Amino acid sequence: MGIKSKRRDLALIYSEKPASAAAVFTQNVVCAEPVKLSRKHVADGKAQAIVVNSGNANACTGEQGWKGAVAMAEKTAELLDIPVEDVIVASTGLIGEPFPTEKVLNGIEESVHKLSDREMAGSLTANAILTTDTFAKEGFTDFKIEDTTINMAGIAKGSGMIHPNMGTMLAFINCDLAIDSDLLDEALREAVNKTFNMITVDGDTSTNDTVAIISNGAAGNEKITKKDERYERFYRNLEELCQHLAKLIVSDGEGATKLVEYRVEQAATEEDARQIIRTVSDSSLVKTAIFGTDPNWGRIMGAAGRAGVDFDPEKVDLFIGSDADRSVQILKDGQPVKESRSDVKKEMQASNITVILKLNEGTAKAVGWGSDLSYEYIRINAEYTT
Amino acid sequence: MGIKSKRRDLALIYSEKPASAAAVFTQNVVCAEPVKLSRKHVADGKAQAIVVNSGNANACTGEQGWKGAVAMAEKTAELLDIPVEDVIVASTGLIGEPFPTEKVLNGIEESVHKLSDREMAGSLTANAILTTDTFAKEGFTDFKIEDTTINMAGIAKGSGMIHPNMGTMLAFINCDLAIDSDLLDEALREAVNKTFNMITVDGDTSTNDTVAIISNGAAGNEKITKKDERYERFYRNLEELCQHLAKLIVSDGEGATKLVEYRVEQAATEEDARQIIRTVSDSSLVKTAIFGTDPNWGRIMGAAGRAGVDFDPEKVDLFIGSDADRSVQILKDGQPVKESRSDVKKEMQASNITVILKLNEGTAKAVGWGSDLSYEYIRINAEYTT
Repeated sequence: MGIKSKRRDLALIYSEKPASAAAVFTQNVVCAEPVKLSRKHVADGKAQAIVVNSGNANACTGEQGWKGAVAMAEKTAELLDIPVEDVIVASTGLIGEPFPTEKVLNGIEESVHKLSDREMAGSLTANAILTTDTFAKEGFTDFKIEDTTINMAGIAKGSGMIHPNMGTMLAFINCDLAIDSDLLDEALREAVNKTFNMITVDGDTSTNDTVAIISNGAAGNEKITKKDERYERFYRNLEELCQHLAKLIVSDGEGATKLVEYRVEQAATEEDARQIIRTVSDSSLVKTAIFGTDPNWGRIMGAAGRAGVDFDPEKVDLFIGSDADRSVQILKDGQPVKESRSDVKKEMQASNITVILKLNEGTAKAVGWGSDLSYEYIRINAEYTT
Repeated sequence: MGIKSKRRDLALIYSEKPASAAAVFTQNVVCAEPVKLSRKHVADGKAQAIVVNSGNANACTGEQGWKGAVAMAEKTAELLDIPVEDVIVASTGLIGEPFPTEKVLNGIEESVHKLSDREMAGSLTANAILTTDTFAKEGFTDFKIEDTTINMAGIAKGSGMIHPNMGTMLAFINCDLAIDSDLLDEALREAVNKTFNMITVDGDTSTNDTVAIISNGAAGNEKITKKDERYERFYRNLEELCQHLAKLIVSDGEGATKLVEYRVEQAATEEDARQIIRTVSDSSLVKTAIFGTDPNWGRIMGAAGRAGVDFDPEKVDLFIGSDADRSVQILKDGQPVKESRSDVKKEMQASNITVILKLNEGTAKAVGWGSDLSYEYIRINAEYTT
């Protein structure tokens, strides 16, 4: 395609059958043209194709960009012979550059031809695999609903993956379950809240963030139309797949050398626990300390304290370790446990670190993931457009 | 004192006369012992001395730390022969280390003797100058209220100044104006909101942040007891001094190579304008782009859009320049102005940069200041305790 050299810049996911669909988009007021278009297209709970370009975010591009997004959907619909409203489009890359519509349309043509080469017979999963040329983050799972095997596959693109940009996060999941689109929407929103919304690389929410799922019923199960046991089983698998993809995104965050799991327990509310995780995992001071394997845990307490959550610091227990089962206690009832700093430093040398804050305020809890902040992050981001 | 080598670690400000006093403290739930103590001591609107140690934050130190903070106030009160409730204490440094009470008390003794050497006759200003051994950020102003000359001096300590820590911000102002303490409190809160609260180095709010003012009436003016013209004159000078100190803190932020002034204009409300400034100036992506003189202004729009403020991106005008009067227009009505990127890159090479966002939503505006994010920030913060 040539928008960016050395990489394929287009991904296409296609379901031969019409599918239930749901999507969650960026909350950013400044949102990309493809986000505006896809919001409309997914509103009826149906979709059949997802097409994604990288290299250009198609944001702050005005009328020209809007027409480009529409053209992407129209070209895809035409080549696949499906309604244009059943195409979800997404973009990632530099903001504010004219959208290279022609190049992207050529890329779509090429991708559809590759689908034909495979006789358009591949399962949804095979189609997803086609996209891994572009996306290196993927996950796959299968599970039984009654006697039917359900397949679910997901691909994701996060900060630093294709190339550094707004920290845009894109994730697309396809599934062959038969499920009502309202339920699919509800499941996706809940899973995104607990996974993709609980990761941070640098705290910036992109103009382009999109997580979408299509589920086409090809597995042949009796359609799920209420929140029964079958729904719960599907939900658990969906959340697990989303968590897998979310952690891959963090691991591959720009300049990341460590993956940190944050657990806040015994909080008054789940939202309190999440808010503390978001603030701590996004603190530059916490992240640089983790990069430097520096047991400067006062920064964790300092960040927790400014999260806008009311708690009593003198009831806090704090632990850091190379995993949740092997961690060093640093604070007990808000007081430093003697001589813990050198033990903590040892634990922090691992590439996976767990930080556990027990607030002793209630029974709610949450978990989230973050990276460290390294020289490499600065290098990547100080030298992006130039 | 020896808590940290190579620097004096104690500052003392003393007014020979009892003074009106006001202070603004960190909103962090996890706050240092000296903050807890000083909140009580300043509650009656009076103070006569401010004593500050660095090297140890006296936070997460429990009972031992509380006793240390009380001992600091008691020792200062005893040596200066003033009520203990009229001493404001502050600390900055590493969190969660036992507080070195004895060393700090020795430092206080030494400082008071130096006051005596100068025959304890110096003006407030002279006493403030004594503290510049520790604090390199200072400002001084005088102005007339009716026929009386008023002197006002301020000192500040910010990130990276004494040594890197929680990004703690301390600022202390002394003045010889006679003013009611309630009005002094109101003036300080408003000035802090418009200056110290509008700067960011890394977005972390410390456990120790303190801004305090004492004003002892030595100038001999008729006491200000209402918001008249004299109050307004005092307020303008106070805000100007606070802005001067705040900008010094940012300029000397950890690893900072550039000072960025952010102006949001034509906002619906002043709070909207401030919120956008806080979010943009704190964005790692914006800060790394500024460090790299990278005209990747899409990051500014992306950050503005996630500030939680409702505005129409298609009405935004965006300018970047080496100062407010000399800036390049990047967006007009939300659309890129052609060929601006290379001009912007030229402007961004200056060490002082101004970013102006005009929202076209109303008439409110705000201004704030931030730094860039450099390799040096990572180096400093990844290697702090170790």
